[in-house]
Amino acid sequence: MIAFSGSPIDRADNLRADPDALAGMMNWKARLLALDGLMPALDDNGRLAWGTLADIAEDAELVFLGLDRSNGGEKPCFAAVPPRGDASPRMANPQLWALMATLDPGDLALYGGARSLIDWHARHRFCAQCGAGTVIAKGGWQRSCESCGAQHFPRTDPVTIMLAEYEGRLMLGRGKGWPERSFSALAGFVEPGETIEEAVQREVFEESGVRVRDVSYVASQPWPFPSQLMIGFHSYADDDALVIDETEMAEIIWFTREEVAASLNGDGPFRAPPPHAIARNLMKWWLEQ
Amino acid sequence: MIAFSGSPIDRADNLRADPDALAGMMNWKARLLALDGLMPALDDNGRLAWGTLADIAEDAELVFLGLDRSNGGEKPCFAAVPPRGDASPRMANPQLWALMATLDPGDLALYGGARSLIDWHARHRFCAQCGAGTVIAKGGWQRSCESCGAQHFPRTDPVTIMLAEYEGRLMLGRGKGWPERSFSALAGFVEPGETIEEAVQREVFEESGVRVRDVSYVASQPWPFPSQLMIGFHSYADDDALVIDETEMAEIIWFTREEVAASLNGDGPFRAPPPHAIARNLMKWWLEQ
Repeated sequence: MIAFSGSPIDRADNLRADPDALAGMMNWKARLLALDGLMPALDDNGRLAWGTLADIAEDAELVFLGLDRSNGGEKPCFAAVPPRGDASPRMANPQLWALMATLDPGDLALYGGARSLIDWHARHRFCAQCGAGTVIAKGGWQRSCESCGAQHFPRTDPVTIMLAEYEGRLMLGRGKGWPERSFSALAGFVEPGETIEEAVQREVFEESGVRVRDVSYVASQPWPFPSQLMIGFHSYADDDALVIDETEMAEIIWFTREEVAASLNGDGPFRAPPPHAIARNLMKWWLEQ
Repeated sequence: MIAFSGSPIDRADNLRADPDALAGMMNWKARLLALDGLMPALDDNGRLAWGTLADIAEDAELVFLGLDRSNGGEKPCFAAVPPRGDASPRMANPQLWALMATLDPGDLALYGGARSLIDWHARHRFCAQCGAGTVIAKGGWQRSCESCGAQHFPRTDPVTIMLAEYEGRLMLGRGKGWPERSFSALAGFVEPGETIEEAVQREVFEESGVRVRDVSYVASQPWPFPSQLMIGFHSYADDDALVIDETEMAEIIWFTREEVAASLNGDGPFRAPPPHAIARNLMKWWLEQ
């Protein structure tokens, strides 16, 4: 199971472009995701808490998340964009990690998708083309500039995260500023003008000095801090000689299969990525090969 | 071979954050990609034409593409952002397609990556967070807002493009407004809050009413109109009964293996995607399975 996947909501994207349908859904059946800034609020059962549209200011910007058809109904689900002044992109903090660890997987996916969207709106209230203010459109899946006519869409930034293997050992890195003993798979943004496979080869070479080949896809994950799409790959290294990029990485080490397995169990030489991270899924996948 | 991949240039991303190194590269050895707006200019050999930094206005915004180490040298390569007033996102026109068909594959990749980048700058001169003007930074791999401090990065928008197969036949669609007989694989943007596999299942269901499973990765492609990352998948359909989304699709048809093969050869029932499109690579891949 990949964390942040498996949202139970039907995105009903055909309704986004239909202002009458959107207006018609803003009724007593509509559910509003309860948030404190970008933090989720939980109900007495530890599930995501929901309010009604009566809970928000009349001029609040609303994002249509989709239709919840659980329990036989068809409830429109919305989230409100945080008010102005709350516009810095925020990473997850320890409180949020602890809270997310208790969430139902479907709730986690729903929260992650909603968070990415409303956080994007909060940080994109102006037109990048002309500087004028923009207005929310298409149920929150677009912002429109009424000054120059430009349309802007929520970002999803593809990031490669990759295993590199050499003679049965796995390359893992500790980024600059990470705690001692914390290791994960190398990762980096896919840039314009390259395939994902080329990005994998470039990133591994930049950070470790190692050339990799036979790059193959493993799995993907939406990552809402703020809006990454993690794309996990495996590759084989031609050599294990490291030339570490010290501007980005504190350490890179080749770990044996036994060391990776022990670390995933909590008693190995490094601290493994947390359960929410696709890096952990990739390591487990590698051990099962 | 995937079109727009295989750029011969070393991105040398470690130099982007080093203002002294960037300034030092802006010398007589530096090459400037010759462009007419966003159209490439060709030299007498049909290769991308290059000029020098003397060719541009002193206040032009320059993007550092990387180092060209062909012929034993190490030439810094740059491209200039089109001037203001030239800011609409433009698709490829027939002249550009004809020109690109003659380009060396490495030149095509280099042009595509450069085009995505400078086109992004031309359409993102203002801060989406506060509306102030922004300045180019990190050799063109960032724009910075000196008013609110926000940093903005070039977009790469992940798009799934997918084959759906049922009992040996392939689902292909003709979009609304496409020419008669032109069919391709279905495609759509990956949204916040979903894995790529979930996006494949959602898009196929939205456009065709068909549920697919066993979704597996095939290949990826950078697509510079304006900045997509095409991510190609194969899937198996549970059923072949179609419910076509008429707001997006003119037709969806299940084609046999023989019909797809004949169409790729130019004498089948449909007009296949052009050589540059990953959809064509996916169809060829499918026939080879």
